Amino acid sequence: MISNHTTLDKKVEPVSAASYERAKAHLDALTKPPGSLGQLEEIAARLVSIQQSDTPAVERKTIFVFAADHGVAAEGVSAYPSSVTAQMVSNFLNGGAAINVLARCANANIRIVDVGVNATLASDRLISRKVRPGSRNFRYEPAMSQEELGEALSVGAFVAEEAYASGVQLAAIGEMGIANTSCASAITAALTGEIADLVTSTGTGISSETLAHKKRVIQEALALHFPTYRQQRPAPLDILRCVGGLELAAMTGFVLSAARLRVATVIDGFISTAAAAVACLLQPATSGYLFAGHRSCELGHRYLLDLIGLRPILDLDLRLGEGTGAALSFSLIEAAAQIYKEMATFHSAGVSEAIAGDVVG
Amino acid sequence: MISNHTTLDKKVEPVSAASYERAKAHLDALTKPPGSLGQLEEIAARLVSIQQSDTPAVERKTIFVFAADHGVAAEGVSAYPSSVTAQMVSNFLNGGAAINVLARCANANIRIVDVGVNATLASDRLISRKVRPGSRNFRYEPAMSQEELGEALSVGAFVAEEAYASGVQLAAIGEMGIANTSCASAITAALTGEIADLVTSTGTGISSETLAHKKRVIQEALALHFPTYRQQRPAPLDILRCVGGLELAAMTGFVLSAARLRVATVIDGFISTAAAAVACLLQPATSGYLFAGHRSCELGHRYLLDLIGLRPILDLDLRLGEGTGAALSFSLIEAAAQIYKEMATFHSAGVSEAIAGDVVG
Repeated sequence: MISNHTTLDKKVEPVSAASYERAKAHLDALTKPPGSLGQLEEIAARLVSIQQSDTPAVERKTIFVFAADHGVAAEGVSAYPSSVTAQMVSNFLNGGAAINVLARCANANIRIVDVGVNATLASDRLISRKVRPGSRNFRYEPAMSQEELGEALSVGAFVAEEAYASGVQLAAIGEMGIANTSCASAITAALTGEIADLVTSTGTGISSETLAHKKRVIQEALALHFPTYRQQRPAPLDILRCVGGLELAAMTGFVLSAARLRVATVIDGFISTAAAAVACLLQPATSGYLFAGHRSCELGHRYLLDLIGLRPILDLDLRLGEGTGAALSFSLIEAAAQIYKEMATFHSAGVSEAIAGDVVG
Repeated sequence: MISNHTTLDKKVEPVSAASYERAKAHLDALTKPPGSLGQLEEIAARLVSIQQSDTPAVERKTIFVFAADHGVAAEGVSAYPSSVTAQMVSNFLNGGAAINVLARCANANIRIVDVGVNATLASDRLISRKVRPGSRNFRYEPAMSQEELGEALSVGAFVAEEAYASGVQLAAIGEMGIANTSCASAITAALTGEIADLVTSTGTGISSETLAHKKRVIQEALALHFPTYRQQRPAPLDILRCVGGLELAAMTGFVLSAARLRVATVIDGFISTAAAAVACLLQPATSGYLFAGHRSCELGHRYLLDLIGLRPILDLDLRLGEGTGAALSFSLIEAAAQIYKEMATFHSAGVSEAIAGDVVG
């Protein structure tokens, strides 16, 4: 057990229901039919309930990309070799990856966190907190020991605390780790009780033969670690430890710590949502601090979003990870905050309200 | 007939299929699994096919909001009185409306075009091209004469030509006109052959009694102008003239003219899509130049998007109009262009490509 870990023990307080209701009333006074900005109004009200401020501020944005390797990659479950994890981290550091472009578009900072890449990476732009050079192969043994899990959770908590201290108002989490959709599928199956077949898809893009093999590997891992998972949900931290990964555990720690600090956090695709779902099961109030940036093509993502009750902002058939979907949603979250702060009211603009009794919000 | 109208007569040339294929090949060389940026890749390839340039440029963006009143508002089909059209135009000019906030967020210009507001509006920030102070009540007579339709189409063509001349690289169209969802529903029924009941919903938000009345008014108008519309589609321009409106006709003219000039145009919700659908039926190549900014809550919008074959970028339950959904999509279209131009290739970044034979795009 990791009972001495403050991130996990300290309760996440619910977002403010009173702030949410006050925000909704303000939105209804703005010069538009009530509710006509749909999800944008919901995002604005949720920001107010998280920040407990009538001037929700999301200008200072940072995307945190957690990277690690996976023992299960040795099973040939991905279209890419493990070495691509380190190569892509270098690409992130050099500014040439999709997440770099999208961070620039969103006027957001980007920080790369090495939690367990199987290579020596040296850069002063990297947050180097390697727990070990890749997790163990979960087909045959738990991906992490208790101690490694605790360390990885702490890395995420540390990064969230640093983000809070430096004034980040809107965070996003993303990841890089060849084979980590296999972790996310195994976690999703174990959390929801669904069979591996339903929650496993092609990840970065594998052939139907490789997909069938990937499903078999996940089934075997579930049978090894959680033989009765379909009858009873295993403890969330056991799921994370046995079939997760170092970057997933760091994201779980980040999400919990950010929620405790009332920092709104945007989750990205299937893998970051798997990490966030573990956090939400540990501390149910956590989901109030999260936004789902998008819904990915990965079938399992739908199950996770349903489990934690978040509606994705975007639905663009993305399946890249890195935080790309979260970064793309930043502009919409910022727009929601600006709508809240800058629009005229019916009163201030001299616009007639709806004919009495006819308007339906 | 308005056969002397150049906008309608001059053929819209198809977008470049060769540019599209070249763009797809470039996207597959970037450091991401092929196709993993989903719709973002599709948007980028479509931009290249419209602009026929390997450096798609969408920095110079303008939102055009066309405003007019509607005779059919006298039938009590909206939650708001007709006077709100002019009040909201003033709100636009004063910068307090939703579209102003979202234009600022998108770093886009905004131009308001008076095609037929039933009030005297004086502002040097307004494009004043009033055809007449509101269309006729289409429950009893055609909304416009042939001449008025021609003039309104010309207004849109003129505005598109001005936009092109001033270097606009990405345009959006939006509208303001109390009762104009009734026009859009009637146009949708006439274009698709569907009954009014299926394509009519609550617009800005009306009670179920008012909705039933609105449906009756639209049914009566269809029976008056197009008694056999369910058997045979009426001529698109007759539909626009009889049950459209001045701002809708101007948007149709804008879309046709912008397509001829190869200016990518983002359509907004139900009303602007109805105007664009008329343009696409007149000149089928037009849809290649259009992006659908979002899918609104209005039921009829789905039928129109299917008719012209566009997949909406956003789906946020918006039902405001003004161009708000189009403005929100700007950041995603810009992101697509930047991905295309700025990402590293596998070769330039030294990243390994997929294991041979395993990657599925």
